[in-house]
Amino acid sequence: MKVKGNHFETIWIHPHNQAVVQIIDQRYLPFEFRIEDLNTLEDMYTAIRDMHLRGAPLIGAAGALGMYLAVVNANGERIEERQITDAAAYLKSSRPTAVNLAWAVDRQVNALQGLTTKEEMMETALSTAIAVIDEERMNCLKIGQHGVKLIEQLSRAKNGATVNILTHCNAGWLACIDYGTATAPIYLAHDQGLKIHVWVDETRPRNQGARLTAWELQQHGVPCTVIADNTGGHLMQQGMVDMVIVGSDRASAYGDVVNKIGTYLKALAAHDNQVPFYAALPSSTIDWSLGQGARETPIEERDGNEVRFMEGLANGRICEVDILAPGTRAVNFGFDITPARLVTGIITERGISNANKKSIFTLFPEKNLNPEY
Amino acid sequence: MKVKGNHFETIWIHPHNQAVVQIIDQRYLPFEFRIEDLNTLEDMYTAIRDMHLRGAPLIGAAGALGMYLAVVNANGERIEERQITDAAAYLKSSRPTAVNLAWAVDRQVNALQGLTTKEEMMETALSTAIAVIDEERMNCLKIGQHGVKLIEQLSRAKNGATVNILTHCNAGWLACIDYGTATAPIYLAHDQGLKIHVWVDETRPRNQGARLTAWELQQHGVPCTVIADNTGGHLMQQGMVDMVIVGSDRASAYGDVVNKIGTYLKALAAHDNQVPFYAALPSSTIDWSLGQGARETPIEERDGNEVRFMEGLANGRICEVDILAPGTRAVNFGFDITPARLVTGIITERGISNANKKSIFTLFPEKNLNPEY
Repeated sequence: MKVKGNHFETIWIHPHNQAVVQIIDQRYLPFEFRIEDLNTLEDMYTAIRDMHLRGAPLIGAAGALGMYLAVVNANGERIEERQITDAAAYLKSSRPTAVNLAWAVDRQVNALQGLTTKEEMMETALSTAIAVIDEERMNCLKIGQHGVKLIEQLSRAKNGATVNILTHCNAGWLACIDYGTATAPIYLAHDQGLKIHVWVDETRPRNQGARLTAWELQQHGVPCTVIADNTGGHLMQQGMVDMVIVGSDRASAYGDVVNKIGTYLKALAAHDNQVPFYAALPSSTIDWSLGQGARETPIEERDGNEVRFMEGLANGRICEVDILAPGTRAVNFGFDITPARLVTGIITERGISNANKKSIFTLFPEKNLNPEY
Repeated sequence: MKVKGNHFETIWIHPHNQAVVQIIDQRYLPFEFRIEDLNTLEDMYTAIRDMHLRGAPLIGAAGALGMYLAVVNANGERIEERQITDAAAYLKSSRPTAVNLAWAVDRQVNALQGLTTKEEMMETALSTAIAVIDEERMNCLKIGQHGVKLIEQLSRAKNGATVNILTHCNAGWLACIDYGTATAPIYLAHDQGLKIHVWVDETRPRNQGARLTAWELQQHGVPCTVIADNTGGHLMQQGMVDMVIVGSDRASAYGDVVNKIGTYLKALAAHDNQVPFYAALPSSTIDWSLGQGARETPIEERDGNEVRFMEGLANGRICEVDILAPGTRAVNFGFDITPARLVTGIITERGISNANKKSIFTLFPEKNLNPEY
């Protein structure tokens, strides 16, 4: 999507040097827009581990390109299989719980298997990485094409008056290659000329909404307003929200949605005020083994310092302030589970389903291993 | 309650100089504990306007003591009625929408009426102010005495295991004279030796939970943990909250509760997880003229900069950081309305009622002007 009027994606091959990968270094957003050159496997490892980039689809692409950089920088004309598996293990350890990272790295390992010359390997690693990027981009675009129909319907029902959409956290293009997941229908609606406005939940404690979602919407020209996470319920009571679209970190085939902490509270408010609540996600996010209610999902407990320290700009410099008294304890759970009963629908790359197994298996029949459904 | 091991209230007459009022200057909490001397009516005006102190009961007491300071500092042996009414109008203008301020100032004006000598007036103004303070303190204590029974019941049901209580914003002793409203049952339970733990909602955008509630609980020795406002729903889903107690800025006789933005979201989660949800409030908070649903309540829209700027400590100094990109819009609604159907009960100075007119009028029969109830 657009940044300062130009089209950007989150990760790409350097236009004048195929041996270099470039990324948007997201650590400085929204205060500074920095592009970082990644020259080596080690550079990519650091970029992933230290969250220069984040978001499941983007981390997958970064893993694929990290393997490409490992091949590019290998010494000599021939590369041993051991070099590839070592590079893969190293790269996967940068964020051990990121499913997409392991998946994309393994895809490279498989593609490179049996090849021996560096030249062949470079060619294969590059085309595999480009395939991963193309697929991720296409999934988001399709989510957008399906989801935008919902916004079109609301716009028609309102006779073209502004459609107000609330979102939580960042399921935007900065987490993907382009378009985003929750934001894909929003960008497509905006580009089609529909009048829309987005309420952006700040999303404490890490403020991904205030920092990333608001920035990317604003750069693309989509009208938006940041609100404290406490505000969405009131807005819905007042009829100021027409729909909610969020992303997801993991979903069950029953339609339960695991997403950034606080999503469940917004889903409750949406349900209480008859506001449609959608989760937009590529089907790779669906954990087909997850039971009803998704209750076996481990909820990551992160560092309480993410609650304690708040980063922002003071006197033109990025710095952080400590918002608690010394000795005050803070805890920080990363995600919550929104039960399917609160979810109006799931927007996937294959279409929109209701939040139940029957409807989801209608879109993904190959996943249905149980004829009962 | 206790600060650094000593008992404090929020406002008092200087122990060695009856012509001086002292307050805790709350602007610097939780980073610095500062006591401020207020010598004049003008000092009190500034303290109220610039929020050195806040909270409806405390502002009432400050108004009464502000009038006392006006009398103390009047020139000559005799004070004209005009001097009193001028002082009253000036003081009330420090926070024009604070109902308790106007009420307490008018009480002083009425008490002083007909008196002429400064000596008589000083004596009357002092005793009136002390009466206001005593009543506010007593109301909170009674709320605590009624509310603590709920915690005792939960403690018994859990065989003495820790009772986990979630609260939102600051309805603590810092908003009152002592005890607080939502916190009064908590302090009494703790002082009785019951095992309790309090989840303190950060309460964006002004962070009254993180700054004030966590500080005052910690100073008094009550175990507590600060959480992002997004977290309460997840905690309730996990069975980690036994009850919710909040304060209120305005309530209807039907049991609807207007309170800090975000309260409604916690009430929804409590209802969805069968967690009892109580509002603790002195009956002066009930607006007997408010209709069912409290929908005519004007919801204050405050400065979006309260969302944009975050205050905290950096390098030992209090400073604020800007957390949004330039040009990003933020809105800031102060309150939301929790409908009575989500409220388990109302804890008042006369006892605990259900959140409906019949039950509330049973406690306050003199307010029932309609024999239908």
